[in-house]
Amino acid sequence: MRTLIDDAVILTMDDKEPIVNRGYIDIEDTVIRAVGSSPMRPRDRAVYDRIVDGTGRMALPGLVNAHTHVGMMPFRNYASDLPLETWLFEKLFPMEDKLREEDIYWTARLGIAEMLRSGTTTFADMYMFSDVLGDAVAETGIRADLARGLQCFDDEFDIDTDTRMQEARALYRQYHGAAEGRITVRFGPHAVYTCTPRYLQEVAAAASDLGTGIHMHLAETSKEHRDCVETYGKTPTQHLAELGVLDVPVMAAHGVHLSAEDRSLLQEHQVSVVHNPGSNLKLGSGVADVPALQRAGINVCLGTDSVSSNNNLDMIRELYLAAVLSKGAFEDSIGVKAHEALKMATLYGGRALGLDSIGALRAGMKADLILLDIDQPHYYPLHDPAAAVVYCGGGSDVHTVMVDGRILYEAGEFLTLDIEKAKAETRRISEDLFRR
Amino acid sequence: MRTLIDDAVILTMDDKEPIVNRGYIDIEDTVIRAVGSSPMRPRDRAVYDRIVDGTGRMALPGLVNAHTHVGMMPFRNYASDLPLETWLFEKLFPMEDKLREEDIYWTARLGIAEMLRSGTTTFADMYMFSDVLGDAVAETGIRADLARGLQCFDDEFDIDTDTRMQEARALYRQYHGAAEGRITVRFGPHAVYTCTPRYLQEVAAAASDLGTGIHMHLAETSKEHRDCVETYGKTPTQHLAELGVLDVPVMAAHGVHLSAEDRSLLQEHQVSVVHNPGSNLKLGSGVADVPALQRAGINVCLGTDSVSSNNNLDMIRELYLAAVLSKGAFEDSIGVKAHEALKMATLYGGRALGLDSIGALRAGMKADLILLDIDQPHYYPLHDPAAAVVYCGGGSDVHTVMVDGRILYEAGEFLTLDIEKAKAETRRISEDLFRR
Repeated sequence: MRTLIDDAVILTMDDKEPIVNRGYIDIEDTVIRAVGSSPMRPRDRAVYDRIVDGTGRMALPGLVNAHTHVGMMPFRNYASDLPLETWLFEKLFPMEDKLREEDIYWTARLGIAEMLRSGTTTFADMYMFSDVLGDAVAETGIRADLARGLQCFDDEFDIDTDTRMQEARALYRQYHGAAEGRITVRFGPHAVYTCTPRYLQEVAAAASDLGTGIHMHLAETSKEHRDCVETYGKTPTQHLAELGVLDVPVMAAHGVHLSAEDRSLLQEHQVSVVHNPGSNLKLGSGVADVPALQRAGINVCLGTDSVSSNNNLDMIRELYLAAVLSKGAFEDSIGVKAHEALKMATLYGGRALGLDSIGALRAGMKADLILLDIDQPHYYPLHDPAAAVVYCGGGSDVHTVMVDGRILYEAGEFLTLDIEKAKAETRRISEDLFRR
Repeated sequence: MRTLIDDAVILTMDDKEPIVNRGYIDIEDTVIRAVGSSPMRPRDRAVYDRIVDGTGRMALPGLVNAHTHVGMMPFRNYASDLPLETWLFEKLFPMEDKLREEDIYWTARLGIAEMLRSGTTTFADMYMFSDVLGDAVAETGIRADLARGLQCFDDEFDIDTDTRMQEARALYRQYHGAAEGRITVRFGPHAVYTCTPRYLQEVAAAASDLGTGIHMHLAETSKEHRDCVETYGKTPTQHLAELGVLDVPVMAAHGVHLSAEDRSLLQEHQVSVVHNPGSNLKLGSGVADVPALQRAGINVCLGTDSVSSNNNLDMIRELYLAAVLSKGAFEDSIGVKAHEALKMATLYGGRALGLDSIGALRAGMKADLILLDIDQPHYYPLHDPAAAVVYCGGGSDVHTVMVDGRILYEAGEFLTLDIEKAKAETRRISEDLFRR
């Protein structure tokens, strides 16, 4: 199957040629064969099975949402604008206890639909019922990294009998490399304040045994920082480093409250930090100093966190926030530049997940890409395509979404899922859940 | 002409009944007659000339963009991510000098299209060529408050011979109350650092003579604050108060760098502050402490600023930013609540402009309203309609826009302007401008 996307503005995320003002993308099955300048000669066009007209469109690598919890879909916009502890302990946790595996089937599909519709082609998830989510990933054609969320408050706990840990290992065995390689699996210890030191070490050892990594929360709030210093005499980052947890590949979500020493440790251990600006703002956690992280040589990528703290899954809003918060919060009009914000949402996300074949449009990369409709008022005039997406764009501009060479969303239509059913069922499940 | 909008979720911005979960809006000509609960009896529906189906829609008062510069449309995404002074003095000002009156005709229409398309029904503008913009307002049916931008660096300057001031007075005479009352005019002295004290006093006197107000920039950057203290021994707010400028109705854009005493002065003089979170972030100006302004009893409304510093005109993004920045920048998960952010973008904007008949949906108010399409993935489940718009919504969700009882935008169609021509001409003008 040969596909040609022709005559689009292309943001490649490839430093050799970052922008092609009128270009084509030549795709064979799941892989990009070439990116070049349009127009292509008519006789060269004859070889393609499918030609996608890119006029009035901007092509980008598909976005990588490197931190979310899709299973939380039923809790979107539930209990907003409350003190953090009230929201979490009085509102959210009791509802999460009522969540059942069968609730995930359709809500996961709605979450995937929302991500596709706003340009995400790969997401990294940490939550319960990851196997049900894995099936939804396989079926809908999106790419994902899954982690079963893990917690342990009791150091005498036996990790071998821990149901969650058993689920995590089973998830790895069953789903790592599944769905034509679109699924990867790692371990998801929640955070330093929800896992004992011994448990963290055992999870890291399990990850190391299987040759995979860890996806966890780190340095999200000042309370986490203070409590950790009080309990262990160390910052959360120091604590993890000393436990050896950072010796496996770690993707650390948040990184809001970090010292210069913390940043050095993260860089030394090649930890990727997932910036979640929307969630950090909404929960009042603060603003991560992304320029400082980048100056320290840390790979910083982007995530939305869940719809319970964001409250949507629009990665274009996140990359906008990454670019403007890095300026406004630090009174620096340069901060994270537009092109760099786009790399955080694409190439650097792939890097964090250990996927070096996604996040850029060039020969040999996976055909994971999106086309934005730039024939809209907010894209005129188009002086600077990267700035236009970052400062003017939004998830709703996405017109076409391709993963592994397969179109999953196009012009309002979801080609691999029943969106009407997903919406109706999410409403029904959510109502039912709140009556339980 | 009787119009019925039936069976919508309605956010009224009226404290007596903030949300009608399934409601109707009864409109006669330009005014709302009633807001009530659906379903309406079939025989009651017979009186309407037009019935708009509100199923799957959320109705809100039209949004009020209380600070923008529509004439800057050709400079969108030009010279991003630069030091502030470079952007302003080396890039923007030289291009502004090349701007001609004929450039405004189509670019103003594109700006109005962008605002309508994202739910703005009233905007307050300060710039050059305000009369051309006034004609575009009259023609397109939007509501606007116009101010000719004023500057004076020389205290010996004769205000009677100042061309800008003459234009400002002519603008008032010709456009104040024009377009069936949809246009109001005030004076637009740029800022304390671009107007001499005597000039500011003379502008305030002129506004007072005509019984109108002032729209100006105030306390945008820490540099403005420092320079003013250095030059006049006073903060910008103190300076204006002592000059008597605050004795006329003032709408002050930005208000990022204010002391507690400044806030008291603003409250005392009933100055409305226009919060421009997107622009303040992008230019690295900082984050205005909106909760502190509100605690001081100040009317705080919202604006986008221009596409040169935002870089779009989407008020739903601004109200999102107002809500989340007030939490994240101050590590407080409550901050500006969703419903309050919506009021800033509607009712409080009307109040700032002295328009008490816009900004809420209740009997007797102007029929300025919008319908959002909430039958989209990011609105499921809909636990809390206000939170849903604020935390999940975006300008692209806007489906229908009505001003003064007249539908100006509906389902992708602009009913009062030629959008294809506006886009093409904006591109042409912008290219031409950069070649001059």
